[in-house]
Amino acid sequence: MATLCKPSVSVPEYVITMEETLELARSRHVDHPNLPLALRLIENTGVRTRHIVQPIEETLKHPGFEDRNKIYTAEAKARVPAVVQRALDEAELLTTDIDVIIYVSCTGFMMPSLTAWLINEMAFESTTRQIPIAQLGCAAGGAAINRAHDFCTAYPDANALIVACEFCSLCYQPTDLGIGSLLSNGLFGDGIAAAVVRGQGGTGMQLERNGSYLIPKTEEWIMYDVRATGFHFLLDKRVPATMEPLAPALQDLAELHGWDAADLDFYIVHAGGPRILDDLSKFLQVDPHAFRFSRATLTEYGNIASAVVLDALRRLFDEGGAEHRARGLLAGFGPGITAEMALGRWHNDNRETA
Amino acid sequence: MATLCKPSVSVPEYVITMEETLELARSRHVDHPNLPLALRLIENTGVRTRHIVQPIEETLKHPGFEDRNKIYTAEAKARVPAVVQRALDEAELLTTDIDVIIYVSCTGFMMPSLTAWLINEMAFESTTRQIPIAQLGCAAGGAAINRAHDFCTAYPDANALIVACEFCSLCYQPTDLGIGSLLSNGLFGDGIAAAVVRGQGGTGMQLERNGSYLIPKTEEWIMYDVRATGFHFLLDKRVPATMEPLAPALQDLAELHGWDAADLDFYIVHAGGPRILDDLSKFLQVDPHAFRFSRATLTEYGNIASAVVLDALRRLFDEGGAEHRARGLLAGFGPGITAEMALGRWHNDNRETA
Repeated sequence: MATLCKPSVSVPEYVITMEETLELARSRHVDHPNLPLALRLIENTGVRTRHIVQPIEETLKHPGFEDRNKIYTAEAKARVPAVVQRALDEAELLTTDIDVIIYVSCTGFMMPSLTAWLINEMAFESTTRQIPIAQLGCAAGGAAINRAHDFCTAYPDANALIVACEFCSLCYQPTDLGIGSLLSNGLFGDGIAAAVVRGQGGTGMQLERNGSYLIPKTEEWIMYDVRATGFHFLLDKRVPATMEPLAPALQDLAELHGWDAADLDFYIVHAGGPRILDDLSKFLQVDPHAFRFSRATLTEYGNIASAVVLDALRRLFDEGGAEHRARGLLAGFGPGITAEMALGRWHNDNRETA
Repeated sequence: MATLCKPSVSVPEYVITMEETLELARSRHVDHPNLPLALRLIENTGVRTRHIVQPIEETLKHPGFEDRNKIYTAEAKARVPAVVQRALDEAELLTTDIDVIIYVSCTGFMMPSLTAWLINEMAFESTTRQIPIAQLGCAAGGAAINRAHDFCTAYPDANALIVACEFCSLCYQPTDLGIGSLLSNGLFGDGIAAAVVRGQGGTGMQLERNGSYLIPKTEEWIMYDVRATGFHFLLDKRVPATMEPLAPALQDLAELHGWDAADLDFYIVHAGGPRILDDLSKFLQVDPHAFRFSRATLTEYGNIASAVVLDALRRLFDEGGAEHRARGLLAGFGPGITAEMALGRWHNDNRETA
């Protein structure tokens, strides 16, 4: 049965604190009529530090879409292989054991995808399948896990490698001055995560069922405006309230599986912002402590898009994992508005010998 | 067993002939030192007509990446639903029977992907999975079929909808003057194709095995240069010769399946250009007539990227299909350089009653 093994995660070396973010907002938008609201929203995120691929002075410049995308490509090539290697090590597999690479990233665009370069650079087999997904945004981490699960269901001896590479700081648009943009400037961070879904063996979350849900008529609530200056992130003010319609989708999926979404042993969800975690706690009637992994990601790294769920899961592993057979829920949320949800049990492959 | 049903295909109403293409090349590049070579390469494509989403006068203008992408979005929304509806009709299914939508397109970029809009607009279930792929280029038609096959292997009662939407004319870059660009300007066309892969029942190509192959160290041979002006297509002069290394990959996959790639009943391959079809014939030792469907697509529509394999398959259906249990090969080729290959048998679901 497909098991999502321990993710490896890497965040870049340049750090920006909440205080620095607020100070930047104050100094750059001194005349903005909604500055006080923007500052309050940023403070409310609870994001204490974020890690970015360039020094903040460089990040604040916009060298043009072409140069930005070149930076994306160079940084991805410089940083992704080590993260992938650690994910393979965690799963005790070699590159040659991998049958499919699912690469998710919405903060840069390459054709061919980085998958082709990775296969060459790290000597994956030439027959490795490539599934690059750029358009599911923050939901793509969950989608990658679910498509890996599907693949291992189709081919029970296969292994899937998931890579989430998000350099959100490269989508900073200095001319976007809406409240949603100012908030986003204080919320998103950069990070790379990778994990292996093993078809056989492995310790981690054994994937039992997955599902998707699109909230009807919300496709414009989270979107990119594609311009000569690159991707402009548009965030509707209704987004933070979307856990009310999404919680029933999580409950429905759990019920289909004979489980109660309010009564599971672990929860790994996308920490898009603090409201998402607060509302999930409220609408699912789950103790806020259950979302501590996601909240820690948000606090320490900011919203690192598709990499959030993998980093939150990594934190559960770091806490010692869950009891063997413990039941859990994993969910990514993103544009569409789409939820990508997975149910599974903790599986400790070494429990006999430990 | 997963069956790829009859694709529906639509090409836009604006037509440009080979003669018009040559005349445009002559008048616009009168001083180009390699004009004679460019004209000869374009003539050699054998592309007699292409269909484009705007009149040629509009196509030749570059209104900027933002406006181009807006045209992509508007044209996709205007044209895709009817093609999808016909594909559903061909498969005798309703939108509510579809479990996953695989949308492939490399000639525009939207986040969320058109899948979200389609689910809302055409009343697909809110639980429909979305797999948008933008970065596999011309190989994406084959990739979509293969991922649909995998999905139906994992969930044998599921149905997958494939949509390939390519408006290559919206990637025309008037300032790109290399030989590869001039050739591309005369080669690529626009088209939309859709098809259903039914988990159970259906007439068409019953998918038995699929595989991918990446030619080592060729990731820069077909690529996009991403700039403020949009996607700039780069085509290395070594690309037309890639059937020599890819033919063995097709043979290996067939052998794994106990088949001989030289001795199958039908062939549906990506018609990237005439050399690809000629060389496949040579290196696979297959009669050129076997590639008549792909050649007809190339001649009448040009290279319509990921939609080629679906249109070529549609032509096989139009010819009456193949014998029940006839063995066939389908393959898309694109950036990476990647081949996405499928083997299957023709299945006539109505043979008892016909």
